[in-house]
Amino acid sequence: MQGWIDGVLDRNWESDVDGTVRFALIGLGWWTTDVALPAIANSDNCETTALISSSTEKAASFADTSGIETAMSYEEFHEGTDSDRYDAIYIGTPNATHLEFASTAAELGKSVLCEKPMESTVERAERMVERCESTATPLMIGYRMQTDPLVQRAREMIANGVIGDPVSAHGQNSQPLLEMIPNPDQWRLNPELTGYGTSVMDLGIYSINTTRFLLDTDPVAVQAQMHSSHEAFEGLADERSASIIQFGDCQLVSTSSQHAQEDTRLTITGTEGQLELRPAFHGDCRLRVSRGDTTITAETDAVDAEYETTELFDYFADRVLAERSVGPDGRHGLTDMRTIEAIHQSAATNERIEL
Amino acid sequence: MQGWIDGVLDRNWESDVDGTVRFALIGLGWWTTDVALPAIANSDNCETTALISSSTEKAASFADTSGIETAMSYEEFHEGTDSDRYDAIYIGTPNATHLEFASTAAELGKSVLCEKPMESTVERAERMVERCESTATPLMIGYRMQTDPLVQRAREMIANGVIGDPVSAHGQNSQPLLEMIPNPDQWRLNPELTGYGTSVMDLGIYSINTTRFLLDTDPVAVQAQMHSSHEAFEGLADERSASIIQFGDCQLVSTSSQHAQEDTRLTITGTEGQLELRPAFHGDCRLRVSRGDTTITAETDAVDAEYETTELFDYFADRVLAERSVGPDGRHGLTDMRTIEAIHQSAATNERIEL
Repeated sequence: MQGWIDGVLDRNWESDVDGTVRFALIGLGWWTTDVALPAIANSDNCETTALISSSTEKAASFADTSGIETAMSYEEFHEGTDSDRYDAIYIGTPNATHLEFASTAAELGKSVLCEKPMESTVERAERMVERCESTATPLMIGYRMQTDPLVQRAREMIANGVIGDPVSAHGQNSQPLLEMIPNPDQWRLNPELTGYGTSVMDLGIYSINTTRFLLDTDPVAVQAQMHSSHEAFEGLADERSASIIQFGDCQLVSTSSQHAQEDTRLTITGTEGQLELRPAFHGDCRLRVSRGDTTITAETDAVDAEYETTELFDYFADRVLAERSVGPDGRHGLTDMRTIEAIHQSAATNERIEL
Repeated sequence: MQGWIDGVLDRNWESDVDGTVRFALIGLGWWTTDVALPAIANSDNCETTALISSSTEKAASFADTSGIETAMSYEEFHEGTDSDRYDAIYIGTPNATHLEFASTAAELGKSVLCEKPMESTVERAERMVERCESTATPLMIGYRMQTDPLVQRAREMIANGVIGDPVSAHGQNSQPLLEMIPNPDQWRLNPELTGYGTSVMDLGIYSINTTRFLLDTDPVAVQAQMHSSHEAFEGLADERSASIIQFGDCQLVSTSSQHAQEDTRLTITGTEGQLELRPAFHGDCRLRVSRGDTTITAETDAVDAEYETTELFDYFADRVLAERSVGPDGRHGLTDMRTIEAIHQSAATNERIEL
């Protein structure tokens, strides 16, 4: 217990580099301004040196408030304006706009940290990977759960056999989107911007990717059902969704909804124990591990979404500065994109889709 | 809160009858002797007057210990021996033997309370319903969860709109069968006695039936995956299983395993709240209800598996004595049998099966 409580915040990577990665943040939604910006301010090896938004004025206004020197529009970014003032970009814009930003960064020789899901379709995500690989541009997808220390401890326990052979997993990620953002005209409800749909792209991806990380294996087949009835979800199949996602002989059953009581959790049951993250995905993660009749729980006030994001940026900076390969990289993100596409195909056809 | 805590153990039915139903208990496994027998002793309107087992000697030995006058073999039961000494039978034998006992009871004019699953196959379950209906014999299936007071409170809350429109449900029922009964030669692992399989028949049925009860609706389609690898599960497809079971627009995702850490839970998430039973199915039920930012939990030491079973027998006796129709009846049980058969079909064919 002593070692456990002392080591709960340990990183599963070591920072042994000096230097700073200067970031241009693209897309100034609430996540970028309220979470990513302070997270970078707290980081060891990152600094925000440029803000990029739909208009120079919007970017300049945020830059003034935050004491950041450089502000520009998307257009100016694509033209290469002031590109000597940053080393990497963080893409926090709607899904269907990621490819263009990553492509420009690849041309400009800037490293890319891109929010998940990496793009709106498999085809566009593949092009993003190609563009970045063609110029040897580091491309990492922003899977915060993989840098959350409690999730890393969970992964280590599974690898060490604490729960035995994984048997089944339950993932749930739901939220009342229209109460959180009371406007049907938002990009998560716009099929042209979100991609295959909304609940799996935006929420289900957490259960899928975190299970991949915890089990250290990838999905092989999916089955799914979806349903939309509220008028705000017109043109989107998955106001709510349910899937079976097969990881070898372990089945993840996953539900996600953009129109439901908030709940996030991931439970993995094995032949000899059970591991649960609940809440799981919004930064205030609580870990519960059972084996036989014994259960331990771990939670820490030190970790929240901002902390996870600091870890994400510091890890990315460490890889870039040391010229190590980054990961979860674009090809890792592509596996989620193909899984989500298959989940939508399965729901549309009622067929099991092999990956 | 005051009304809630005072009313938590309320029955959703009223006993206004006098009299006693005298029971013959068939099959003297641990459930019958350790749970059903004391449960009946605690009941208002039931009494155990006969014990029936594979041999007269085994039955007589238990009857002596328990102070019960009549003991007989299965053969003697089928011959109608001492049939004036009981009014009803309780069937607690392996699944594939229920039909014969119920058929004899129907011939003898005895009411039937039969353990779930009601039989090993849909075809045999249908014959059981026909036999009982042909002689107007009351046939009830022993779904204890439906007489658990906390489950009844949960059902009332859902009906009253506490969680809004049900969106998705998660059911999990797993246990380490080979640690609980360390013998591969047990009937739950014998395809001839258990029927379609083991984990869905024995465990998944709790998630399915309790969701039916809570939502007051029946499944319309299923998708499933199964896997067996341990040698004790030879000839059985579902050492572990995962299913999507569609209830209208609400999807239940359900996992069950006979070779995993013990865990029982049922969670129903709605547009405005969430209701969870965890633990759910082994008598020590804990109810958690969230709506917006508020969560209440209810648990009571008064309720355990024996209490649920007393409620089950008293409810059955009340219906029989008042000559009211019993329920959950054989046709209700048939819906579970058809659902379980479809789950096995879906897992074998990778197709979605409509019900």
